[in-house]
Order: sequence, then C-alpha cells, then structure tokens
Amino acid sequence: MSKHFVDLLSSRGRIGWGGPVATQRPPMNPTYEFGGGFPDPVSFPYEGMIEATARMMANEGAAAMTYGDPQGYRGLRELVCEKYERFESFSTTPDNIIVANGSGHALSLAFSAFVDPGDVIISESPTFSGSLHTMRRHGPEILDVPVDGEGIVTDAVRERLTALRAQGRRCKLIYTIVNFQNPAGPSQSLRRRHALLELANEFDTLILEDDAYGELRFEGETLPPLFALDRNARVIRAGTLSKILGAGVRLGWLCAPKEMIPAFQGFLFGGGVNPFMSRVATYYLRDHLTEHIKRLIDIYRAKRDGMLRGLDETLGGTDAVISRPEGGFFIWIRLPSGTDPKRLQELAVEARAQYTPGPAFFPQGGGHEYIRLAFSYESAEKCYEGARAIGRAILAAKTR
Amino acid sequence: MSKHFVDLLSSRGRIGWGGPVATQRPPMNPTYEFGGGFPDPVSFPYEGMIEATARMMANEGAAAMTYGDPQGYRGLRELVCEKYERFESFSTTPDNIIVANGSGHALSLAFSAFVDPGDVIISESPTFSGSLHTMRRHGPEILDVPVDGEGIVTDAVRERLTALRAQGRRCKLIYTIVNFQNPAGPSQSLRRRHALLELANEFDTLILEDDAYGELRFEGETLPPLFALDRNARVIRAGTLSKILGAGVRLGWLCAPKEMIPAFQGFLFGGGVNPFMSRVATYYLRDHLTEHIKRLIDIYRAKRDGMLRGLDETLGGTDAVISRPEGGFFIWIRLPSGTDPKRLQELAVEARAQYTPGPAFFPQGGGHEYIRLAFSYESAEKCYEGARAIGRAILAAKTR
Repeated sequence: MSKHFVDLLSSRGRIGWGGPVATQRPPMNPTYEFGGGFPDPVSFPYEGMIEATARMMANEGAAAMTYGDPQGYRGLRELVCEKYERFESFSTTPDNIIVANGSGHALSLAFSAFVDPGDVIISESPTFSGSLHTMRRHGPEILDVPVDGEGIVTDAVRERLTALRAQGRRCKLIYTIVNFQNPAGPSQSLRRRHALLELANEFDTLILEDDAYGELRFEGETLPPLFALDRNARVIRAGTLSKILGAGVRLGWLCAPKEMIPAFQGFLFGGGVNPFMSRVATYYLRDHLTEHIKRLIDIYRAKRDGMLRGLDETLGGTDAVISRPEGGFFIWIRLPSGTDPKRLQELAVEARAQYTPGPAFFPQGGGHEYIRLAFSYESAEKCYEGARAIGRAILAAKTR
Repeated sequence: MSKHFVDLLSSRGRIGWGGPVATQRPPMNPTYEFGGGFPDPVSFPYEGMIEATARMMANEGAAAMTYGDPQGYRGLRELVCEKYERFESFSTTPDNIIVANGSGHALSLAFSAFVDPGDVIISESPTFSGSLHTMRRHGPEILDVPVDGEGIVTDAVRERLTALRAQGRRCKLIYTIVNFQNPAGPSQSLRRRHALLELANEFDTLILEDDAYGELRFEGETLPPLFALDRNARVIRAGTLSKILGAGVRLGWLCAPKEMIPAFQGFLFGGGVNPFMSRVATYYLRDHLTEHIKRLIDIYRAKRDGMLRGLDETLGGTDAVISRPEGGFFIWIRLPSGTDPKRLQELAVEARAQYTPGPAFFPQGGGHEYIRLAFSYESAEKCYEGARAIGRAILAAKTR
C-alpha cells in the first residue's frame, strides 16, 4: 500500500518515523525478566480493587461514568497531597496537582507546554529511556550532564547553562530523577538539590523533577523534594501510581505552581483523565496506602538483596561497578573492562535472561559498557539465580 | 506570585494562554441541563460494570494491573471491529485500531501526527466546540466550509482546495462529523461522502472522520462511513465509548490505514492506554453491546421527541429553524430573526436552563443567531418542559 501520507506528517510526526515506537511493553516472560520496570504481579491488590470498585460505584457511580473535572478527580488529588505529606513531609494543595494518564503522559504535558522543536533542555545522562522517548518526540536539543554518587553533577549543569548564555540561548528546563536515579541509582544529595535550584533561578529556567519510586525506599533518609525546597515557583514534579498500585491503572500527575496548571491542562483533550479509574484507585489507596507500601518495600528489598548477592558472587573478583540503590526497581552495572556487549547479549539470550542494554539510556549515544537490571518483576529467588546467570554470562563475554 | 514562566512557554503552550482551558466539564445541574453532551446517568450499567470488573480480574487481573499493549488492549480493538461490523456493516482489523484516552485524545493524536502550527486544515462550520479546542491547540489555520441538509458542502471544499493550490499551499486534513453532525444535525449524504473522498484524492490530502454518535440512530438508514468507502488510504476515523457506555471510562480510538498507526502511537507516552479500564469496558460490552445500545436508542429517542414537541409548541409560529436529527444528542436552533442573544442568556439563567450559545461552534467567529440544546442528560419530561421554558425565553428575547 502506498505511503502517500508520509509527506503530510508534521515535523513532530516525522521524529523517529520508521523506527520503533513502543516505550513500554508488557513483560516478555523469559526465564528471568529483568528488562522493564514491571511491578511484581504478586503485589497487586486484586480483591482490594474489586471491593473498591463496588464501594465506589455505590457511592458515586454516576460521576465515575461521566465527564470529570478537567484537572482530574479531586479525591485523587487530595490523596496525592496526603501521600506527599506522609512520605515526603511537605504540604501542597489539590489545586497544585493535575492528573494525567500515567507519568509518561504527565511529562509530555510539561514538554508540550514549554518545549518547541529546536529548544534546548538539559537531561541527566544516563536517564530513563521512556522519558528520552517523550523528550525526543518534542524535538528539543538535549544537552546531557553526568550523574555521580550524589546525583546530577551541578557543576556540569552550570557549565552548560553558562555556555548557552554566552551563545545568547537559554535552557527551557532541566529534567532530573531525584530518588534512586533511573538507571544509575543514586539519590540526589541535599546540597546538589539546593545547587540545582539556585542554578534554575540564576539562569531563569525550570526544573522537571521526576519521582516514580520515592516511596519505595528500603533504607536511608528521605530528602525533601526539589518542589518542596523551591522558593521561586520553578519546579514541576511528576509522580505516578504505577509503582505503588499498578501501571495498568495509568494514573500519574504533575505537581506544580498553581499558576502553571492551565498551561498543562490545555494539552488534555477530553473530559477529565480517567474519572472511573481515578476513583477506584483512590478508594483503594485511601484505606490501604501506608500498609500497602510497607508490604511493597519488604517485597522489593528482598529482591534487590537477592540480585546483589547473585551479582557479587559472580562478579566480585572483577572491576565491574554495581550500583547499590537505596530503593526503586533497578541495578546499574558498568561491565568489567573488556566485556563484549554483543557477545553478552547472545549469552543472555541463551540463559533466557532479559536486561536493558546501556545505550537506551544515553541522550547522546554511547553507554555500551553499561546494562540495567530490573529486580522488580521476578521473585527474590529468581533475582538471585538470574543475577548469577547474568554474572556468568558477563564473565564469559570477556574478550580481552 | 510571579509569572516568570510565561516567557518560557512553547508556541503551542501560548495558544489561548490566559483564556478558558476546559473542554468538557461535568454537568452543572441547573434545572434543565441542555449544555454539554452528557450521557444520561440512568443509562449507565452500574451493576454490569461491577460484575465485569470482578470477572475480568479473575481472568486477567495481572495483565490489567501492569503495562499494556502500546496500541491498546487487543480485546477492545476486537470489540470495536465487531461493533463496526454489526452497526455499520464494514470489516476492519484490530491492527487498524489504536486506543486513546477518549475521542478528544484520539483526535489530538491525528492532529499531532499531521499538523504543524501554520498548516492549513479544513473544518465544517459549525463544528463540535471540543474539537475546535483540540485543533486550535495545534496551531493550524482553519478554513471553514458550511454544512447544509446533506452535511459538509463539498463544492465549498473544492473551492477552498483549489484556492490553496493556486497559492502553492496544501491542506493537511479535512475534519468532518458524518452522522448527526454536531451541532447542526444532518448526516452526510452518500453522494457527498463520495465527493469528499474524490476531493481528498484529487488534492492529495487526508480526511479525519469523527463519529461519536453513529450507533444512536433513532430512524433513517445507516450509510457506509468514509473509512469503509475509501479506496486510497486517506481516511482516519475517530470513535468513542463515551456515548454508548460512559464518558468516565475515557476510551476512544482511531481507525486508520495500518501503516499510519505508528504515526499516532508515537504520541502515546506510556505503557498502553488504560489496560485496566479497557478490560472492564470490554468485558461488559462483549456480553451486552446490542441490547445496551437498543436500550439507549429508546431512551434518547423519547428525549429528542419531548424536546422537539416543547420547541414546536412554543416556537411554531416564528421563523426559527429547528433541526430534526435522526440520532445523537443535540438540537440546533437558528433563533427567530430579531432575537437578542444576550437577553436570551439572561432569561435562560432565570429559567435555570443551560444551553450552548452558537459562537462556541464557529471556527471563524459569528454564530450568535444559533444555540445548541443537548437532550441527552435530562429525562424526556424535563426535555419537554425545559424546551418550553427555552422556547418562551426565546420569544421574550425578541427585540424587533
């Protein structure tokens, strides 16, 4: 069939045309699924969701079945505020929250509102592959800055911003993942948080703070989010229920200065995001939030520990660098020197172990010496076994 | 608080900045709610949705709670094909369907894929106000063409296309509502459908065919949709469950040539639209589609008839022009000559009757001599009473 329509595509429609389009697929079910950040199906509250649906429909079924508040169900926005209060000790209001169809969609609202094709944004490198897809679709020039043990390297951000200013250009926003940075693992230190806020202010730009995993902290101290530290209305914060309830509910949000909310809402084309689903999720979490998250932390901590043990046992004697995240879903490995990434992929396929190769996470290419493993989906035992299998494959992929 | 961020907004972010942003709010609950196209709450299958949730969770709860197929739940795409087969007698495949978060979102995928700011598109005038919002946010130049008793006036489309060609420009797409045109009421005749397809082919452009109400036909013959008549892969068709199940489920779709699907999918930022909600809706409709729609047709026909009776009784002696749609949710009135639209609005507020003033539906301004009434939300009795109240208000608003 003809492809006559291709020359009718918009400039954004042409971005990546002909390439892969999926950002997140369901699990593939190899023996060891360490690829995507899939929540553990054992963790889903099946009965709880059925019960919440029945209770919600009895209480407000008519509202659930029709158009909703364009900013999102107020009950969910209140719940998000309560969650922030309880887990991150800061106060905000439902008027600061706008609900979206998952946090990927929430991020896209921020990019749509602020980024034209050709605009400059700054991103950590490495960063979450799904967010990279979302950014790229908006056509910006992405300037990358490295991440170290304290998160985003703010000196590198300053260099970027200074160079831009010298060219008479400006940065529209800085995208950063503050807790258990995906994929590299570190949480942004307090002094870096303050430094980043100062930079945003000094160079008159915005910060897009992504936090999909913050509640799933196994150890260490929760630091105040950029949004809470900000005194100059420069931070937009993205959150999601995907990791603490289930990605299938597709509920995320932006938390932002009140005056900015209309800028995002203008890109929601319909009558309120998911009025039905928002209510089911809210009814469930209103009664179970703290206890459910406590359970998740126990589940995922055991998996992380299993995976780290398996990796240490196999790669202990090498110069591999293995992250030890205080929470979240991922371990990031710099492969031992001399590892052939192609050979590793073949060996991993033989071992039926799925992982994500490093290059998916680098805005400017490179990253072949890294891989990311998700410990979220498989059991703790399989995390251990599978990590050993991957560890052995890495050793066998050494070519020099 | 400062609005420093305003000069960081993208060009699309600036469109309509400072103006109203909501496209569809929940019902306001005046005495007579004839404003938005809200489905009747009496029509919602409350028990059916609870039952479907429980059955779905037992069968495929794990899939419902995690990331889904980026093109949308296959079961829902199959159901859409079955619906097309049953109600519009044409065949397509699940590969031609991509699920979105309501049809407004679906339309936005088409505009995002094909329309850059400054591009030209053609729209009926009047047309659905929500779609106008979605179009405008993508920044095109909108050329309007009139609608008559056979739907879009294709001679006017030809004139527009010819003039564009003479200027060396082209039209990216033609947006048209084929059944019970919202707001004007007519269904596009078969000869117009063929003429429109020929024009799309001759001038190398696309057609965006919107059909939110097609199943809700009270009388008259269902004509083949443009998508089914098209032999040149030029038609993208939008559909929704909002009117046949409930707008709160937020499930819509595009049906398009298979090769185009990736162009839309690139603007879905997340792991499949609503995996949970898609399954609940599919489980319910799989068993109840035909019977439920039959019930809806009876409900809405009685309302239309009640409203028309009330309008005829009050406005019968005037030169008002009142549409008699064969289905859908709306009646369109050209007010009697000499009606003062401002005075009418005051009188309607006094009568606690909500309607939508004509200007909301005109891409290029004007339309003050029109109003749209939705008969979908109130009971048949209240449609009759409220129509009489509006009719009296119209008579009282005559100034000359």
